[in-house]
Amino acid sequence: MIVTAPSLSKVICVLSGGVGAARLLQALSGVIEPRELRAVVNVGDDLVLHGLTICPDLDTIAYTLSGRHNDVLGWGLKDESWRVMDELDALGGEAWFRLGDRDLATHLYRSQRLGEGATKTIVTAELCAKFGVDVALLPVSDDPLATVFDTELGTLSFQEYFVRHRHDVVVHGVKVEGAASARVSAGARDALTTAARVVIAPSNPLISIDPILQVGDVRSLVRGRRDDVVAVSPIIAGAAVKGPADRLLGELGYAVSCVGVADFYGDMVGTWIIDEHDAEHADTLRERGHRVIVTTTLMHETANAHRLARAVLS
Amino acid sequence: MIVTAPSLSKVICVLSGGVGAARLLQALSGVIEPRELRAVVNVGDDLVLHGLTICPDLDTIAYTLSGRHNDVLGWGLKDESWRVMDELDALGGEAWFRLGDRDLATHLYRSQRLGEGATKTIVTAELCAKFGVDVALLPVSDDPLATVFDTELGTLSFQEYFVRHRHDVVVHGVKVEGAASARVSAGARDALTTAARVVIAPSNPLISIDPILQVGDVRSLVRGRRDDVVAVSPIIAGAAVKGPADRLLGELGYAVSCVGVADFYGDMVGTWIIDEHDAEHADTLRERGHRVIVTTTLMHETANAHRLARAVLS
Repeated sequence: MIVTAPSLSKVICVLSGGVGAARLLQALSGVIEPRELRAVVNVGDDLVLHGLTICPDLDTIAYTLSGRHNDVLGWGLKDESWRVMDELDALGGEAWFRLGDRDLATHLYRSQRLGEGATKTIVTAELCAKFGVDVALLPVSDDPLATVFDTELGTLSFQEYFVRHRHDVVVHGVKVEGAASARVSAGARDALTTAARVVIAPSNPLISIDPILQVGDVRSLVRGRRDDVVAVSPIIAGAAVKGPADRLLGELGYAVSCVGVADFYGDMVGTWIIDEHDAEHADTLRERGHRVIVTTTLMHETANAHRLARAVLS
Repeated sequence: MIVTAPSLSKVICVLSGGVGAARLLQALSGVIEPRELRAVVNVGDDLVLHGLTICPDLDTIAYTLSGRHNDVLGWGLKDESWRVMDELDALGGEAWFRLGDRDLATHLYRSQRLGEGATKTIVTAELCAKFGVDVALLPVSDDPLATVFDTELGTLSFQEYFVRHRHDVVVHGVKVEGAASARVSAGARDALTTAARVVIAPSNPLISIDPILQVGDVRSLVRGRRDDVVAVSPIIAGAAVKGPADRLLGELGYAVSCVGVADFYGDMVGTWIIDEHDAEHADTLRERGHRVIVTTTLMHETANAHRLARAVLS
């Protein structure tokens, strides 16, 4: 059902990491025109491996919105095969970061175009056009960024931490290299300043959303939009739906709850959307000056996802 | 049959392009210990595509010597599949340079290792160890080189000329960019100076062997070994066995025969090995100061290939 009421026809900007953001964008696409959605996407996870530039969050969102994502694996493309990786493994190459044969085509395409001088923004738009994705996916920056982890095993790159060690390692701190000098992309800046609403997706606050906020003046741009900022808690009843957000909040000194997430974001959020299982925390958040909406935030069922989307837009 | 007579046990250095050199090296491996063979290999065809560094001549030789080459296609690996290329084609990517799924693993491996700071020499040795290739494959240089073509369609890169236009275009000249500043690799220099014999493979003189000769002091090194230099003519009865050597010789002003090839190389060759079909040219070559051996130079049958190999070593 596409709602075309004027109040819902304005541009919605969504600060986005990977899976959680992809699901929210998919849900929002079910209740407003996808062309009215702008996702400002984290690129701190991006990596160069085998000479290829890989953008996990951009790809997760594009694959999900185009219906190409692999539901069984929870990442990558469906109908995938692994001929290249199997052969690379046999050669003794770096095969821990699994790149499927279909998925590799995306990275070959991107790497070639970047080598020709295209920006990540342009390449993403080209890929989305091919995939039939109408939501505008906007890398927060076209400059290089790298989220790195200070851990019990020493400094790890994002994918070493996340994939190689399956985020099963104690983290002392997170740093986004390049954030200080990276420029906000024109598309991201436009979306952040002109959107009717700025939504913080239920992505990992510490390692997906914060690397977006650290680029240039993004944090102050979002803070300036406080009344229009709606954040969806990625923590439900003390646990992350997926990934290490719960563990990281605890390790970095925050409460493992929607309150801890609210503490992390601080005063930039006007409205918090928290899960029914966390209704007990609503008053705490209101006392800190936030509006609070309590609803189902799990998006596994379409009806629930659309209800959440309508709450975000309400 | 492995001949271990002392006179044949010394190191043989083979200036090598792609297919013709691969076949000669395979033939030589049948009559002397592969470990005594050093191939100094052209890297002027190497390219960066999709962010991947691809070395067609090194790969053709490694694949051939390890029995992995695709005899049906005449290039690449056997048991190949094309999932990545098909997908890249669907994305509108640069799919004219066909890279099979198995083949891609080689390029991913190489690109990753080069990115880590390994030289082309080292990466080639690593791949050869994995492939079980005992012949030492030595890139003539670890520095970047690019053979480019001045054609009726303007300037073309090697693979644009060779693959994209299937070498069906008029060539006015050939240039090797980077040759003046490229340094001869230590392995190549050692092979060129210490080998008992320097063999010029029946590769394309103008676009496979000449880019080797243009690097640093390789031409003068080979010239200094004149008495030990044996060249196998790639032209048989006025035609190249494979590729555009015949056409290029004509377009660039040389006779389309073993005599034209001898004119092109000039005084650096001590001994010419020409095909039985070209016996008429033997006297002309002798008048120019070359020793001449007339034999079967086609290597499709193993017996013929080994006969040629023994002529090269005689």
